[in-house]
Amino acid sequence: MAIDRALLVPALKNIATRLRIDSIRSTSEAGSGHPTSCCSMADIMAALFFAEMRFDPKDPHNPDSDRFVLSKGHAAPILYAAWAEAGAFDRSELLKLRRIDSDLEGHPTPRLPFVDVSTGSLGQGICAAIGTALNARRIKSEYRTYALLGDGESAEGSVWEAANAGSMDALDNLCGITDVNALGQSRATMWQHDMDQFARRWTAFGWHTIVVDGHEINAILDALEQARNTKGRPTMILARTIKGKGVSFVEGKDGWHGKAFKKGEEMDRAIAELEKQLVPVRENSPAANLAAQIPKPPAAARAVATPKTVAPPAYKLGELVATREAYGAALVRLGEADARVVALDADVKNSTFSDKFEKAFPDRFYENFIAEQVMVGAAMGLAARGAIPFPSTFACFLTRAADFIRMAAISNVNIKLAGSHAGVSIGEDGPSQMALEDLAMCRAEPNYAVLYPCDGVSTERLMALMAYHPGPAYMRTSRPKTPVIYSNDETFTIGGLKVLRESASDVATVIGAGVTVFEALKAYDQLKATGTAIRVIDLYSVAPVDRDGLVKAGRATGGRMITVEDHYATGGVGDAVAEAVAGAGLTVRRLAVREIPRSGKPEELLERFGISAKHIVEEVGELVG
Amino acid sequence: MAIDRALLVPALKNIATRLRIDSIRSTSEAGSGHPTSCCSMADIMAALFFAEMRFDPKDPHNPDSDRFVLSKGHAAPILYAAWAEAGAFDRSELLKLRRIDSDLEGHPTPRLPFVDVSTGSLGQGICAAIGTALNARRIKSEYRTYALLGDGESAEGSVWEAANAGSMDALDNLCGITDVNALGQSRATMWQHDMDQFARRWTAFGWHTIVVDGHEINAILDALEQARNTKGRPTMILARTIKGKGVSFVEGKDGWHGKAFKKGEEMDRAIAELEKQLVPVRENSPAANLAAQIPKPPAAARAVATPKTVAPPAYKLGELVATREAYGAALVRLGEADARVVALDADVKNSTFSDKFEKAFPDRFYENFIAEQVMVGAAMGLAARGAIPFPSTFACFLTRAADFIRMAAISNVNIKLAGSHAGVSIGEDGPSQMALEDLAMCRAEPNYAVLYPCDGVSTERLMALMAYHPGPAYMRTSRPKTPVIYSNDETFTIGGLKVLRESASDVATVIGAGVTVFEALKAYDQLKATGTAIRVIDLYSVAPVDRDGLVKAGRATGGRMITVEDHYATGGVGDAVAEAVAGAGLTVRRLAVREIPRSGKPEELLERFGISAKHIVEEVGELVG
Repeated sequence: MAIDRALLVPALKNIATRLRIDSIRSTSEAGSGHPTSCCSMADIMAALFFAEMRFDPKDPHNPDSDRFVLSKGHAAPILYAAWAEAGAFDRSELLKLRRIDSDLEGHPTPRLPFVDVSTGSLGQGICAAIGTALNARRIKSEYRTYALLGDGESAEGSVWEAANAGSMDALDNLCGITDVNALGQSRATMWQHDMDQFARRWTAFGWHTIVVDGHEINAILDALEQARNTKGRPTMILARTIKGKGVSFVEGKDGWHGKAFKKGEEMDRAIAELEKQLVPVRENSPAANLAAQIPKPPAAARAVATPKTVAPPAYKLGELVATREAYGAALVRLGEADARVVALDADVKNSTFSDKFEKAFPDRFYENFIAEQVMVGAAMGLAARGAIPFPSTFACFLTRAADFIRMAAISNVNIKLAGSHAGVSIGEDGPSQMALEDLAMCRAEPNYAVLYPCDGVSTERLMALMAYHPGPAYMRTSRPKTPVIYSNDETFTIGGLKVLRESASDVATVIGAGVTVFEALKAYDQLKATGTAIRVIDLYSVAPVDRDGLVKAGRATGGRMITVEDHYATGGVGDAVAEAVAGAGLTVRRLAVREIPRSGKPEELLERFGISAKHIVEEVGELVG
Repeated sequence: MAIDRALLVPALKNIATRLRIDSIRSTSEAGSGHPTSCCSMADIMAALFFAEMRFDPKDPHNPDSDRFVLSKGHAAPILYAAWAEAGAFDRSELLKLRRIDSDLEGHPTPRLPFVDVSTGSLGQGICAAIGTALNARRIKSEYRTYALLGDGESAEGSVWEAANAGSMDALDNLCGITDVNALGQSRATMWQHDMDQFARRWTAFGWHTIVVDGHEINAILDALEQARNTKGRPTMILARTIKGKGVSFVEGKDGWHGKAFKKGEEMDRAIAELEKQLVPVRENSPAANLAAQIPKPPAAARAVATPKTVAPPAYKLGELVATREAYGAALVRLGEADARVVALDADVKNSTFSDKFEKAFPDRFYENFIAEQVMVGAAMGLAARGAIPFPSTFACFLTRAADFIRMAAISNVNIKLAGSHAGVSIGEDGPSQMALEDLAMCRAEPNYAVLYPCDGVSTERLMALMAYHPGPAYMRTSRPKTPVIYSNDETFTIGGLKVLRESASDVATVIGAGVTVFEALKAYDQLKATGTAIRVIDLYSVAPVDRDGLVKAGRATGGRMITVEDHYATGGVGDAVAEAVAGAGLTVRRLAVREIPRSGKPEELLERFGISAKHIVEEVGELVG
């Protein structure tokens, strides 16, 4: 910075003090929040926002703007205070903190334009920061990413997944800062102020590591400069701080986590103490108005590639192809059509077939090794900065990132999850490798589109729709090869279904998805041979679901509806259909996996766990009586 | 060991070779599996099982038996081969690997008596091993725990949560072994054979670390001895190995992960190579039959404390108490009644009220800091060895351990999860802290009992039931204080419900749980004032659910049923009731949270997101018409 440190430092100290005051005032007004967690990091925030980062407070989404991720999301009040201080909005808004009519929520969400991803579930922000840092490389931007973590947060395994990813990808455009205030929510943290515990871990994980006094502005500025100049690896600044810093009667005291100062005497006393710490800055000093001098991101002329039409699938009817394989093929077509499409995997690319994409676009493929949390977290960061990321792994291992999937819903971020190897139809590997609750996991979140194609054509067509569906989406694919049943020009919609067999004399509607579509078709053939007609539906869109289409079929078949799914009985196809048709007074019988399965051949398992053609035929028989 | 190394080592080498042959033969017979992942660790297995561990092959559950956890569960064939070699069962069984009629599944499950917890989702076994190691301390046993990890697995964050837990708890009765064979499923691992990458991480995390050649029996034996003699911290043995070791045409070759040798020429060639590696051991050598010489665990006389009756709750009707608070009180009463009850928390003990238990029983409380995966994983290990563990955190953060919760269902292990701060009723902290999919997560798993009490008495009564319910269970508690509505001697059952209001003229049944029970009661009062009677049900047991009770109420109220829940619309109370009553032709209208919520006051949020008394009254009005 051009401003002399002798002038700069007292001005930043004043900003830090103001941020502390704002954090205390807003939480006291709200009656809840984490002011002491804000106070410990105020000097870091002042240095970072007003002497280091390049950004435009009025245009936080500028693609070349430095990113700041508050991984310790409970310190939201000071994040808001910093943006207000920078001029993003009026300081008076801060007093609406945590109110139902304000976007200044208890923990940050992207309802605010300067927040990329929701934080507040610890250990996630640093993973998203991996994604925003990767994105800078993707769009060839010089912007840097800063992520501020808590020390308690450092116990989360996801932090160490991010640590590995950062060093493996040599992300020298990423700088982490850990606010080591030594106090967690309920007690002293694991390592308290033993800075070496932190330093040796981050160093071992391949990061450049700097230990500073987090209340020494000069030391913080030096560390940030050192981080900026460190090449080939990310930097972690470990800042030794005091929780509640600046307010003598709470400094370093246990029992103050997540407690607002009581309005009145308690708050007034805290603020009075802080106000005394303000030092005079001459009005004509170059440091008098640091907010006005925040360097804007460089104006980069950036050609935006217009997405092309996604090439159609090219299968033959009856051709045997696993939907997971079609997923890989579709991903390549998408990659060809749109430069924003990127893929991530967790060391199963040769099973999910994302390796096809890697071969075609090695620069847009990110290998996360066996670390599903940082894979999904990085995808969230990439999506927040304009990429269209497809993270893939076995569907059962997406449960490893369930909390990220939850937070992605809250962020309404544009990630496209892909889970392969759904259900008992994977066979011999056994239950640990079978996803039987993935539909439940994704359907539970309000914002997710959940797709479950049964053949190559529908997989490819749905992939193209999914890529441009705003918000999070999940596609479930299967291990076994299944015949192509749709012609290449068949069209699909998110929220649609396909009636595969119908006649005026259908006695029941059987609704399958994925592999069970073929069991339903087999049951159709068997029943037809005995003179019984059933309607067969491919429910390829499990969320949203085609309510009208289902009700129509149900009504046309005497209200007799059967769902059959390679998923547990709860939260999947059965529940989706049942809720959809309940309003029409219709009920549903469900065939689903109802106990913990085991190893065996796929067809043996479909049989044993009650979701084969034979069971459908029996169920129709019972229903028709 | 008493046997001279000069005799012991060749005998162990032979065992390792036999284990390789068995692993190849069984996977070839099955037509799938991971023989090359077994070959890399065969020497370690031979040394561990036949020259280090103390156990009784015929009584693997002996409480003083050393524990072995195969964290890299895909190497199941060599685990089975080792137990067969030790005499646990006949070697011929190995050829039934992965068959539907055999318990020798693709990945290990506790269907086998020598498996404590299911593995196969990587990074979980080492967490369970933390639990079995803690358990040794709990029961004052000298047994040791060994956990064998893969190198690819080491990318999982949960491994580093376990690493922290192990050193923090100074678990010198725990020894990890990482099989560094440098090849993952889809490519070379992150660090390949750079042993220092592993060593510096484990050392930084506070473990005694030893690097060995994983094919040098002498070095392995030395390392195991060193581990046994290392006090005050756990040991990690980092074994440099070759994937496919022993079979020249696959050794260290990519592309062989998860591939069985083809029966016939390919398998025969591999086995012939291995057979040539067998060396003659004299029949009368002390090393001729190592299996027969496995040291049995010491016979420890152990007094088993008989559980006492759990003390009843002691509330006054109408007293205001949050169910999370009652949870803490109940946990203390359980602890007093039964020495097997232990509690774990993730730095929120003062919010979940598990701190009450810690105060009463500091030796039976485990603080996991903010690391939910190892918390649940350790609970699984503790449960597998006879403890009754209650891991608690905010319900939303249990999603962080969703994959562990899934695997706990597969293990059918006796853990008692407790999630506090359910739903929008937490208020100002905002959506990141609100659990709105936790019921869906636990209900999806076939083996879970899911309980959701609304007052202090039901919480305490259900806690006592939950503790002795076999298998996994989950209790959801709430943040707000609610009035006690049950008398202290009221009885409850898992799978039961309570009809709180009923009359012959009820026009509809309203089913709530937790905080919405009180919204339903308010709605009852409001409707009563207008001359409309409704039936009100407290569905405290969400899984299993009282089908008959629900159907009876539905039928008695003209088939008009409304569920209301502080949970998303999918997978919770609404779905549970809908599925239960569908067979009787009844349908359900659901009031639930249907979009991403935000910060605000609890009552504002119940109102805004459609689950308040007002919405119930309106819904009854619409339904009755």
